[in-house]
Amino acid sequence: MASPRWVLPDHFEDALPEEAIRLETLRHRILDEFRRHGFQLVMPPLIEYVESLLSGSGKEMSEHTFRMADPYSGRVLGLRADITPQVTRIDAHLLNRKGVTRLCYGASVVRTKPRSLLASRQPLQVGAEIFGHAGVEADIEVIRLLARTLEVAGVGASRIDIGHVGLFHAIARLAGVTGDAERELFAVLQNKAVPDLEQIAANVEEPARSALRALPLLYGGAEVLARARKLLPADPTILAALDELDAVAAAFPDLPLSFDLADLRGYDYHSGLVFAAFCGTSPAAVAYGGRYDEVGRAFGRARPATGFSVNDLRDLLARDHEATGMRAILAPVHGDADLASVIMALRSAGEVVIQELPGHPGTWQEAGCDRKLILRDGRWVTVSLQGD
Amino acid sequence: MASPRWVLPDHFEDALPEEAIRLETLRHRILDEFRRHGFQLVMPPLIEYVESLLSGSGKEMSEHTFRMADPYSGRVLGLRADITPQVTRIDAHLLNRKGVTRLCYGASVVRTKPRSLLASRQPLQVGAEIFGHAGVEADIEVIRLLARTLEVAGVGASRIDIGHVGLFHAIARLAGVTGDAERELFAVLQNKAVPDLEQIAANVEEPARSALRALPLLYGGAEVLARARKLLPADPTILAALDELDAVAAAFPDLPLSFDLADLRGYDYHSGLVFAAFCGTSPAAVAYGGRYDEVGRAFGRARPATGFSVNDLRDLLARDHEATGMRAILAPVHGDADLASVIMALRSAGEVVIQELPGHPGTWQEAGCDRKLILRDGRWVTVSLQGD
Repeated sequence: MASPRWVLPDHFEDALPEEAIRLETLRHRILDEFRRHGFQLVMPPLIEYVESLLSGSGKEMSEHTFRMADPYSGRVLGLRADITPQVTRIDAHLLNRKGVTRLCYGASVVRTKPRSLLASRQPLQVGAEIFGHAGVEADIEVIRLLARTLEVAGVGASRIDIGHVGLFHAIARLAGVTGDAERELFAVLQNKAVPDLEQIAANVEEPARSALRALPLLYGGAEVLARARKLLPADPTILAALDELDAVAAAFPDLPLSFDLADLRGYDYHSGLVFAAFCGTSPAAVAYGGRYDEVGRAFGRARPATGFSVNDLRDLLARDHEATGMRAILAPVHGDADLASVIMALRSAGEVVIQELPGHPGTWQEAGCDRKLILRDGRWVTVSLQGD
Repeated sequence: MASPRWVLPDHFEDALPEEAIRLETLRHRILDEFRRHGFQLVMPPLIEYVESLLSGSGKEMSEHTFRMADPYSGRVLGLRADITPQVTRIDAHLLNRKGVTRLCYGASVVRTKPRSLLASRQPLQVGAEIFGHAGVEADIEVIRLLARTLEVAGVGASRIDIGHVGLFHAIARLAGVTGDAERELFAVLQNKAVPDLEQIAANVEEPARSALRALPLLYGGAEVLARARKLLPADPTILAALDELDAVAAAFPDLPLSFDLADLRGYDYHSGLVFAAFCGTSPAAVAYGGRYDEVGRAFGRARPATGFSVNDLRDLLARDHEATGMRAILAPVHGDADLASVIMALRSAGEVVIQELPGHPGTWQEAGCDRKLILRDGRWVTVSLQGD
């Protein structure tokens, strides 16, 4: 079907000046905050061989990845739908540091399908990752940095959901559920399909049976963690996971934490503590994160890893923002010898100075000018712009 | 052929921390310079319907554009190989202002083939465009902004080549060469194929014949423009083009301008004054620009337009740069009540402060730390880091 040439495909959009400068400013401010926390910026390419892009990530990512033929190699290229596996590749193979490595990014990903009806197929993501530290201190640091990111954006978190994929794996192991059956159980919990869960639980031995039945009930405030210690078996892996959850609860007395020990949604390649941040009353998370210790293995080096990414920076643009527009000074194109240095001084002071072009009377306010430079008694002065 | 999963396709590359922060800083500094000149940032998407992306641009762009199927519309999508036509679409259709509009961008494009053996298939471009002003004042403004951009990058222009596509079109019209024959003549001049040019000239009447023969000889300093007035016919369009070239020569007595009136290389959709900037001794231009008054027609509104884009910001990273690395302060993860505010104050002052994670002795210098925070006589002080 023909459509005008200025129509964009569904779920792709332009950021016009008002939105673009706000996105640019917020992106820069967040990356600068990451830098001051010791996170070093990396810029992996938009395109890689598709099997590299999908290394260690889930099936969901494969379905979301645009593919195209490479005229050079004849192989299939993919447009990245996620940046985390790329950063993992950089840590594992290119930097190859022995100690703790903190990396960050701020760039677009592209998806064949949007995450929701109102989402973009080209979200602008910012994220931060810590490699090389297995302890919960790293998880706490990234949750703190995520909270700080939301503060920088001026939105703040209305809720941070905390879960633990390791709890699921420990219970599945106790239940003797492995391979395809474990993946099926994972999907059942992702979908919160309680009847299906009951059916699976009925076929496993105690104490795994009670643990599986208890899992969907373990959500709420930090008191959930004490209940979990009573309802779940005293398996060392389970106790270690609960210790990590306790440490997170203790670290953030001021954050609106909420625990959901059966929550596995969106954590396709995660292995331990996971979290999702929400703003305002929106039911969609603005950021996801957590531990993914095994992803680096595909790149030759499995390192402990944890981090977060903001799904789309557009979601963090404060909704109560008033359109401010530009405040610019109109300057004549020709003047005396002082004019150029006056303009340069104004620009150095942070002002926007627009050079007038001849023959456009009455249009300069449309271009954002509210003042103009005029020569008065031999000096350049700024006066209000009216009707020029 | 199998290759390790960390190998990237040819001509795609990662920017690792040292390069990435320099690119990010330079991009931000240039966009801020554009802003202070009144150029408003826009962010068009990476993907559009392929026929929109290629509206008004040349065949070369079509060959360079990756294509993929859209699962939503069933139509063919393209990855942008150029941003200028997208910005033209925004001016023509979305902003729809009556007066002069200045827009800018700083983002990646993707190409099936690199521009040269050493070039990237994902160049990071910055560019600025003026819409709505047909006079040479706008061309002069964008050349000045390009020169300023190179200054901001600390490289400076070693040469700026100036040409004029309108001269070619005027001479072709005089020669009665139109349609396919005009496109062939354009290619002959692009390739500097003098024997082919001689053959075409032999078949046209004076004064077009002499003009065609003179064109390839008209290159050099500003004196070329006086020679052109003698050798080319006094056709009004030719005289107007020469007036514009004279105005540019007069506007930049301090820039290393070079004129080449037969130069059409890379100017597939341009219509008037064109230019290319070079740095150092490299034979490849770092930026191209010029007038393209007709591109907007495909989007419903042909507006006068001129601008430039830097081919790849990586080309502007000063080559004599010494690796500086990061200078960071290592801070303990636990301390007294003052520690958090001391860290916050250091970060606010622009310092990078890295939180120590337990169990990684001897690796913090690798992570960029050269100092550490310690508690001495009840106060947090910064001391040199040795061997931690």
